[in-house]
Amino acid sequence: MVRWEPNARGRLEEAALELYLERGYEQTTVAEIAARAGLTERTFFRHFADKREVLFGGAAALEDLLVAAVAGAPETASPMEAVVSALVTAGAALQERGPAARRRHAVITAHPELRERELIKLATLAEAVAGALRRRGVADPGAHLCAEAGIAVFKMAFEQWVAGGGVAFAGLVRDLLGDLRTVTAG
Amino acid sequence: MVRWEPNARGRLEEAALELYLERGYEQTTVAEIAARAGLTERTFFRHFADKREVLFGGAAALEDLLVAAVAGAPETASPMEAVVSALVTAGAALQERGPAARRRHAVITAHPELRERELIKLATLAEAVAGALRRRGVADPGAHLCAEAGIAVFKMAFEQWVAGGGVAFAGLVRDLLGDLRTVTAG
Repeated sequence: MVRWEPNARGRLEEAALELYLERGYEQTTVAEIAARAGLTERTFFRHFADKREVLFGGAAALEDLLVAAVAGAPETASPMEAVVSALVTAGAALQERGPAARRRHAVITAHPELRERELIKLATLAEAVAGALRRRGVADPGAHLCAEAGIAVFKMAFEQWVAGGGVAFAGLVRDLLGDLRTVTAG
Repeated sequence: MVRWEPNARGRLEEAALELYLERGYEQTTVAEIAARAGLTERTFFRHFADKREVLFGGAAALEDLLVAAVAGAPETASPMEAVVSALVTAGAALQERGPAARRRHAVITAHPELRERELIKLATLAEAVAGALRRRGVADPGAHLCAEAGIAVFKMAFEQWVAGGGVAFAGLVRDLLGDLRTVTAG
């Protein structure tokens, strides 16, 4: 029988983040994460494949959110407008998570193997966004390019937002898109 | 004493590619690759960290080539023109390697762990190109965006080129850049 463990995922994510920041990512074991969360190792592995994945538990939700926002953009929106509105929606969700998103980013940037996993998640997001654009009738290579450019903007907006300065995510996305236009028009 | 082994790297790369295509990537061991190349396992590990890396032996040369081409673009070239001329130079080098580049691509696309390594190499290339642009006096975020957009175009041009149709790499790069302009202007 599986015990009822309220918000086990969230508790494991928070415990992992705390331990990675306190002791370092390499030094932390799954057993320690589970203990900090008041759960068992078995429960950990029911939710996450390894101690990397516990940092990427939000990736599927972010993908769903982006795909839904692209799909839900007005019919008259250009492909890039649809992507930008999706990025702004995702940015608002990240801003709500605020401090946790910043702490998570600090752990990831400090470890090459975590940065690699992040790249893979971003590539997956770009593919999902391209798929959502195709379902809006956008042909390739436009759909693919628009999604890749959008995710590159998203990644940079996130880095600027994490670095602080208090600028809202939506403003960062729009500024970067303007910069992208300028360089590609080059 | 280290024995003189003419073109050990190239022989190991070719042997690995043959075996990956004949027997599959998972089924092939480093010992088998070394044997096929007429070399020892020890020699393999002097050149490559593991059986993934043997497929990415050209990444450093590609990076050097792109960085040198960005640096060598005319002073009057815009950042994107400098990147495009670098991509066209790199494309010419890939076209020369022709069949080997196509066989390598077939192995990589068939294996998620190889696709991941490819993504990491592409991200490294984008960082290197951004650095080369900064050394030309291009400020961020323009340098970063231009490099990311350029590498996205390069990746897609390469996929289209591998898929065939006989279009030259340079033409694919220029067409995709035009498409990128259209979607970002959108």
